[in-house]
Amino acid sequence: MRATVMYRAGEVRIETVPDARIIEPTDAVVAVSRACICGSDLWPYRGMEEIPDSGRRMGHEAIGFVEAVGNDVRTMKAGDLVIMPFAYSDGSCTFCHEGLQTSCVQGGFFGIAGMNGAQAEALRVPLADGTLFVLAVGQDDALMPSLLTLSDVMGTGHHAAVTAKVGPGKKVAIVGDGAVGLCGVIAAKRLGAEQIIILGRHADRIALAKEFGATNIVSERGDEAVERVRQLTGGYGVHSVLECVGLEQSMLTAISIARPGGAVGRVGVPQDETMPGSQPAFYNNVTVGGGPAPVRAYIQELLPDILEGRIEPGKVFDRVVGLDDVPDGYRAMDQRESIKVMVEP
Amino acid sequence: MRATVMYRAGEVRIETVPDARIIEPTDAVVAVSRACICGSDLWPYRGMEEIPDSGRRMGHEAIGFVEAVGNDVRTMKAGDLVIMPFAYSDGSCTFCHEGLQTSCVQGGFFGIAGMNGAQAEALRVPLADGTLFVLAVGQDDALMPSLLTLSDVMGTGHHAAVTAKVGPGKKVAIVGDGAVGLCGVIAAKRLGAEQIIILGRHADRIALAKEFGATNIVSERGDEAVERVRQLTGGYGVHSVLECVGLEQSMLTAISIARPGGAVGRVGVPQDETMPGSQPAFYNNVTVGGGPAPVRAYIQELLPDILEGRIEPGKVFDRVVGLDDVPDGYRAMDQRESIKVMVEP
Repeated sequence: MRATVMYRAGEVRIETVPDARIIEPTDAVVAVSRACICGSDLWPYRGMEEIPDSGRRMGHEAIGFVEAVGNDVRTMKAGDLVIMPFAYSDGSCTFCHEGLQTSCVQGGFFGIAGMNGAQAEALRVPLADGTLFVLAVGQDDALMPSLLTLSDVMGTGHHAAVTAKVGPGKKVAIVGDGAVGLCGVIAAKRLGAEQIIILGRHADRIALAKEFGATNIVSERGDEAVERVRQLTGGYGVHSVLECVGLEQSMLTAISIARPGGAVGRVGVPQDETMPGSQPAFYNNVTVGGGPAPVRAYIQELLPDILEGRIEPGKVFDRVVGLDDVPDGYRAMDQRESIKVMVEP
Repeated sequence: MRATVMYRAGEVRIETVPDARIIEPTDAVVAVSRACICGSDLWPYRGMEEIPDSGRRMGHEAIGFVEAVGNDVRTMKAGDLVIMPFAYSDGSCTFCHEGLQTSCVQGGFFGIAGMNGAQAEALRVPLADGTLFVLAVGQDDALMPSLLTLSDVMGTGHHAAVTAKVGPGKKVAIVGDGAVGLCGVIAAKRLGAEQIIILGRHADRIALAKEFGATNIVSERGDEAVERVRQLTGGYGVHSVLECVGLEQSMLTAISIARPGGAVGRVGVPQDETMPGSQPAFYNNVTVGGGPAPVRAYIQELLPDILEGRIEPGKVFDRVVGLDDVPDGYRAMDQRESIKVMVEP
């Protein structure tokens, strides 16, 4: 079968690799219908050190059909349509029971060194019962992009909103206008936010943010952005900030635009070991939460809104490629030609 | 009148200063019955740059009697016994209404440069109606130490517990065995924690922690402390960490001993601009909250437990000095001869 392999920063190849197969009795093999390239894939694309022989199999978001299951798999069968969250999880440990599947004691992540990736024709999914979400619907091409976002970006935007304590009547800001930030706009609106400010400056993304429910656009950066958000919020800042970037500057901005007693939900993978703004966060009693989103826990809640057309997060996909064009998809996202690339293997 | 003035690190003097008097119509003058030296006073004691002429009036915790009120003060009269929280606040702004008086738009802090201090015979209290809590009880010498802790340390320990999401059945750890950490033990027990682990190594403090309800003592530091807490908690760490120190190492320990999905409530004044452990906090979805405690908001909740003898936070005072011996009180706390010093002017 063919799969996407990254060997070092900037070097992404489509290669023929051994077919995905059942290894453990709890495994399933999923034939990938749609996968995508994630903003977080751009971090290794920009800075990964060489992994000379094996490379790194890429991709952690997928929707597809079960092709085979191990002997211990109970909740699905070949032919079922499933959403594959970006983390695998056993569904039975204390953290899975608490809805924090990204901390599953037996779990892990797809698309990291040594693990399978979803930008491929198929992949082996460990702990299939705990990991995969079986959809009762058949394939529906119009719905597939939005359903695919439940494997990561929509659940991640929702996690940012939940950990930022978004609720009815709240003033909300979103730092980052990538696919996750845009899904954060959807999540904030869905949870009842009164004001939704997005910090971003790319015309196409801003247009989509407005369509999703953003009420204000702040295209300034740094101190000017902070000042502008304060102006828009009666001088105090917002109750909830969704940090969807992961850089030092974006985190500092996020903390600086939170009102006293507010909360930052961060889902941008932090690129630094230390967090800036420790003192302003402290003096303003600003809470910082978030992390890898337990998207598996959120599918049940978000799915009806997609099936019934109330939200359309699939609109974040503005380019579709086959496997052969995945390397160009990386390039397009890296150069911000594309918000998010969908892959049809 | 006499008051405590710090001129630079290590230099604390008791001096005769102009009598406290009403300046604004919303002021009250309070004759101090009991004040104290705070762990946070040790930061300037150890590192303050010289303020050559005026120095800095010290002290932000007091209980005392109203001596005079301005024309606009409505809720108290001369002779009332009052608790003075470490921050003054108007009681009417949006943040006061939300119970975050430490972010009052007109508010500020006692005992900082340019403001009055409580380690004195008396002091002017701005915004008296919003700031002071009038006690219905008369002076009761046995209760005074515990009531005094409502001006800071007991409310601060409670804030750490609240922001660390302590609740029934939770496993809790407290980093720091100072007066605030010890009050954190009281708060954790009061809120129903099942296991209360204190990280500390001073025999007198540990004994008091046990009396207050600590179930485990961890005297190791750094990685060994993390390992020990994990052993005590089935390998995962605690749900709630009360960070009561404010140093980089203590914060890193706090984040490292939180279980996935757990929360750190920090009340130790952070001494560094950046926060360590950004990545482990992120990957484990550990929330970091806390800040200056809105103790004014907590008095109503904590007071009955003190009046009815269910909690005795006043036991953190292990030394009582008159004003003349305040400089020696600083020395004793700095050298850890004393947990917390009470001042009787």
